[in-house]
Amino acid sequence: MTLGFGVVGTGAIGREHIQRITKVVSGAEIAAVTDVNQDAAKKAVEDFNLRASIYEDDTALLKDENVEAVLVTSWGPAHESTVLKAVEAGKFVFVEKPLATTAEGCMRIVEAEQKHGKRLVQVGFMRRYDSGYRQMKEAIDNNFIGEPLMIRCAHRNREVGESYTQDMAILDTLIHEIDTLHWLVGDDYKSIQVTYPKKTKNALEHLKDPQIVTLETKTGIIIHAEIFVNCQFGYDIQCEVIGEEGIVKLPEVATAQYRKDGVLGSGILQDWQSRFNDAFNNEFQDFIDAVRREGQPQGPSAWDGYIAAVTGDAGVKAQQSGQAEPIELPERPDFYQQKKQEEKV
Amino acid sequence: MTLGFGVVGTGAIGREHIQRITKVVSGAEIAAVTDVNQDAAKKAVEDFNLRASIYEDDTALLKDENVEAVLVTSWGPAHESTVLKAVEAGKFVFVEKPLATTAEGCMRIVEAEQKHGKRLVQVGFMRRYDSGYRQMKEAIDNNFIGEPLMIRCAHRNREVGESYTQDMAILDTLIHEIDTLHWLVGDDYKSIQVTYPKKTKNALEHLKDPQIVTLETKTGIIIHAEIFVNCQFGYDIQCEVIGEEGIVKLPEVATAQYRKDGVLGSGILQDWQSRFNDAFNNEFQDFIDAVRREGQPQGPSAWDGYIAAVTGDAGVKAQQSGQAEPIELPERPDFYQQKKQEEKV
Amino acid sequence: MTLGFGVVGTGAIGREHIQRITKVVSGAEIAAVTDVNQDAAKKAVEDFNLRASIYEDDTALLKDENVEAVLVTSWGPAHESTVLKAVEAGKFVFVEKPLATTAEGCMRIVEAEQKHGKRLVQVGFMRRYDSGYRQMKEAIDNNFIGEPLMIRCAHRNREVGESYTQDMAILDTLIHEIDTLHWLVGDDYKSIQVTYPKKTKNALEHLKDPQIVTLETKTGIIIHAEIFVNCQFGYDIQCEVIGEEGIVKLPEVATAQYRKDGVLGSGILQDWQSRFNDAFNNEFQDFIDAVRREGQPQGPSAWDGYIAAVTGDAGVKAQQSGQAEPIELPERPDFYQQKKQEEKV
Amino acid sequence: MTLGFGVVGTGAIGREHIQRITKVVSGAEIAAVTDVNQDAAKKAVEDFNLRASIYEDDTALLKDENVEAVLVTSWGPAHESTVLKAVEAGKFVFVEKPLATTAEGCMRIVEAEQKHGKRLVQVGFMRRYDSGYRQMKEAIDNNFIGEPLMIRCAHRNREVGESYTQDMAILDTLIHEIDTLHWLVGDDYKSIQVTYPKKTKNALEHLKDPQIVTLETKTGIIIHAEIFVNCQFGYDIQCEVIGEEGIVKLPEVATAQYRKDGVLGSGILQDWQSRFNDAFNNEFQDFIDAVRREGQPQGPSAWDGYIAAVTGDAGVKAQQSGQAEPIELPERPDFYQQKKQEEKV
Repeated sequence: MTLGFGVVGTGAIGREHIQRITKVVSGAEIAAVTDVNQDAAKKAVEDFNLRASIYEDDTALLKDENVEAVLVTSWGPAHESTVLKAVEAGKFVFVEKPLATTAEGCMRIVEAEQKHGKRLVQVGFMRRYDSGYRQMKEAIDNNFIGEPLMIRCAHRNREVGESYTQDMAILDTLIHEIDTLHWLVGDDYKSIQVTYPKKTKNALEHLKDPQIVTLETKTGIIIHAEIFVNCQFGYDIQCEVIGEEGIVKLPEVATAQYRKDGVLGSGILQDWQSRFNDAFNNEFQDFIDAVRREGQPQGPSAWDGYIAAVTGDAGVKAQQSGQAEPIELPERPDFYQQKKQEEKV
Repeated sequence: MTLGFGVVGTGAIGREHIQRITKVVSGAEIAAVTDVNQDAAKKAVEDFNLRASIYEDDTALLKDENVEAVLVTSWGPAHESTVLKAVEAGKFVFVEKPLATTAEGCMRIVEAEQKHGKRLVQVGFMRRYDSGYRQMKEAIDNNFIGEPLMIRCAHRNREVGESYTQDMAILDTLIHEIDTLHWLVGDDYKSIQVTYPKKTKNALEHLKDPQIVTLETKTGIIIHAEIFVNCQFGYDIQCEVIGEEGIVKLPEVATAQYRKDGVLGSGILQDWQSRFNDAFNNEFQDFIDAVRREGQPQGPSAWDGYIAAVTGDAGVKAQQSGQAEPIELPERPDFYQQKKQEEKV
Repeated sequence: MTLGFGVVGTGAIGREHIQRITKVVSGAEIAAVTDVNQDAAKKAVEDFNLRASIYEDDTALLKDENVEAVLVTSWGPAHESTVLKAVEAGKFVFVEKPLATTAEGCMRIVEAEQKHGKRLVQVGFMRRYDSGYRQMKEAIDNNFIGEPLMIRCAHRNREVGESYTQDMAILDTLIHEIDTLHWLVGDDYKSIQVTYPKKTKNALEHLKDPQIVTLETKTGIIIHAEIFVNCQFGYDIQCEVIGEEGIVKLPEVATAQYRKDGVLGSGILQDWQSRFNDAFNNEFQDFIDAVRREGQPQGPSAWDGYIAAVTGDAGVKAQQSGQAEPIELPERPDFYQQKKQEEKV
Repeated sequence: MTLGFGVVGTGAIGREHIQRITKVVSGAEIAAVTDVNQDAAKKAVEDFNLRASIYEDDTALLKDENVEAVLVTSWGPAHESTVLKAVEAGKFVFVEKPLATTAEGCMRIVEAEQKHGKRLVQVGFMRRYDSGYRQMKEAIDNNFIGEPLMIRCAHRNREVGESYTQDMAILDTLIHEIDTLHWLVGDDYKSIQVTYPKKTKNALEHLKDPQIVTLETKTGIIIHAEIFVNCQFGYDIQCEVIGEEGIVKLPEVATAQYRKDGVLGSGILQDWQSRFNDAFNNEFQDFIDAVRREGQPQGPSAWDGYIAAVTGDAGVKAQQSGQAEPIELPERPDFYQQKKQEEKV
């Protein structure tokens, strides 16, 4: 009954998910681990006191029959290979973003999964599990605001360091909006453009910050997404969908309200971990429950990973060209049709 | 057409209202002034560049036929005498609170006015002209929340000085709630009680601060009013009416919202002048318009002034006794029946 | 490693917690169950697919060495006996409120636990695990608002049925405020009084609704708690602590904000389950983690259960007498000293 | 002392301002009126009971020495001619937008005024007098949010009729943002672009609705302004300035908050009159006071009218071209240098 996970990659994010699986959510355990750094794998087993086999590599780990699901938290470029092997072996996969580092790689996984005949793969886009976004999705699916026409959103980090490069604004930051927004409105992207406002003095020299991304969907929804990774004041996620009959907006984080020194205020979170901690937990619990109850995951699919890759590539191109770059996606296969929120209940 | 005011008392509050009448609202002018300090009267005429006669006392001023309305902003103990003379002379009266310093004095005015046969007097309770309270009144009168059952309110000042004495918590501070709340729910008070929570270290020795006042109305509405005049953080007025079908609450003051240094905040006002400036203006404009158009004021009446005096006396007694003190009011005369908000429109 | 629970009482609340332990939180499993209705016990085992022994009664269950902790979710009058047996057996106890139905019963447990020498018992007051209250507690403990002077709170339910009796306003509804508020300010209660505002037409004949409870603490904090169990509009918990230097307030529940049909609105929850679901989960996870890591629970203690019982009794008396009834508590034993939030981290 | 207004144009907006000048603000009176429809002029005099001369045309009216200031509320195409005549006559001018229907016309006024040597003209952009915008301006001028980098705003009307044409989205609706935003950040526009999201079904056939306007300033601030004139839910003005150190946002309108039927809500205004009524009043009072005290108006200048015209023209062109159209403005003359909010106090 308990779902046995094999963990491929025991670095920071791998350890965080091991902690989540063993200490927070229920219904799963760590059956096996591997890492290119064998010491790291051993250390994870010790630190979390796991009853788990340690393997040399993903191939070996996948042969362990206690491994029913693979948690892929290795280095990004290694994802595709592990996921393909896992799918071939008929194992469930929870893979952190990116699904693969290229659109072609994602497509290979999409094809392998379809060939397998049943969904196996879930990509780690946790925002769909945030209660605020879920409420928005429910409102939209129930036609509460009519047809969506525009979206305004913002992704703000307090600050980033030297290692944060220009393309990461798309591939690491915007990638979450890319996944969440098409899901929210049930639409596909048509083009992406990036413009650069006046640069903040608080950004390092190599980085344009802030950036404004304009996405257009196939039905004509226009999305303006602000990326501002040195905003100084905190971690702040905003999203507002403007529809024909009304508007729905992500709630502000509920923090205690105070009155002091002439200010009516409340705290703004400072990091994404605290903002999306519940979403991460819900994401894993849902993966575990769906796999155990229905034999397949129901969260973000390999197709969603593919959309993210194609859109991300176009976004990076748009960063350089200054033009609206087309986002060319094949028709969504029936295999990956999205269900509306209401139909899920 | 322009309403000529005769001002009795050109101290701070008198000058403020002269400024309001001459510079902000329309339809009125200052025709005459008097003050026990003749120099102050002259100075007001000069400073505001008034075309106004200066009189020795209120009796002389009332004989000036350009004086159609008297603005009574003298020392509290002098109010009654001036108001009575003005009513006898058939002049309109705008009198700052208190109407008179004793309930008996108020009653003498009430009787004089009824004898005159038409309303002449308005008492300076400006909160009824605040847009937030008006919206609440409208909601209640339209039965939006059903029958009111409870009220929770707070009157908070940043700090008060040495001259603020214990009874002023009732007679200067709570007096505004006393007037506003019975108007808001269209009910009369039955009793008043004062309790003292732990005292703030920020209050001077002679003052109990905060104080909690419990008022009960004839129909059984229970009101808890917090008076906290050294709250440190600003000037803050709260009011919430809980009804059978819902709750209505005074809006927070609309100040620009900001995000900075980990805080989602907005400013809290620091003084009552900025909080109720619009209400003061509306109050005067309404007095002037009502008198000009309908021949009588429609704001807080002499009867409301009497209610405030009786309730205030009971409140001061309750501060000392610790008991619920009865508030004994005669039946409201037909002459002073309150109209519901909706009927006014 | 996994904490084995023996469940005593498999009714509605028992089943809910079984679900929580097996499906939501981690680190625990159900090792044994019992119920006065053996069929109910069997059904629970089947429905949740438990690998758990079924026992005739609590005495038998407590002999099972796989039972490390007892979950007491039986009928209230049965709590005391089971808890005492469990403490005697040195088992950990998670007992739903009430700890015992009488203050004397609670005291017997307190004494038994002290005799045992180490904390074993946690009472199911989940609000302390709500993130809003925790933020308030942190602010207060860090002296952000100075000394607390007053508290204003409200406990509102949409409606209650025939079976909800007058005393339940104290023993079932206010009981949560009773536990939370003394913890929030680190103080003990001195007296309790109940007053009755005008009754809502939406309450059944046998019930006075709303009720206002006034609690005073030993240091002089005055608390006004509104109990309104037929408020019609939803489930609504409010709490505001007014201190010497500022105010801190429970955040509104974060629900998506919308603009539609002339309304800027957001949804109000309709039931306590959705309001405190996270708190319930945190509560169990904390109990399990604390017991596993530190060998004793750190949540609401048997002493807190005793405080609740004494205060609840005084509250029911106050409902009848209309007077401020004294709350007489012995000195808090060192064994049960509360630690401030900051010291816990 | 009282400022004598000569009104040119006694249609709807003219009458509204006559009402404002005579009934709401102070320090001014209507000395003369004219209208192409002489009956309308007579009717205004009667309806408002004015002691005002009625003239055949603006030329005659300008000869009346009781006319110190001209209120131009005629048909847009007639504005330029009247304003030029008034400036030539050395009269103060309050002209409703547009200053003139062409940029060239505006420039002619700018030149005439400079030739006169002192400011005479104020254009009726009332938003600068809205307390929310003023607070934002103050925060920005005081460097509270650092350098502004981006602005997000929205101008939403409930619905518009047949007569609302495509270009009015720029010339009647956006024109307010055009004036307010450059003032807010003390910058000039460089380009304007219009894009069209999916069209709402609630717009008539001839109108694209909503529209998104992108403005860029000379220093690189990027502004996204949503125009949505059939948004259905109410009249809604949003504005948020994102700076290097923080964000400042226009407050929501303060309306009473309620809890009812599962909704925590407050009302959204339905029309611009109620939203900006105070701003209109402040605007007139400020014009009157500035003219009387300082001998020149200090509100939106002829140069601001010129900026609006040039930007509006480029905006209409951008509606058709789909391209970013350049906004070419000459250097701002010293004569029209803007002072920062702080320096004004």
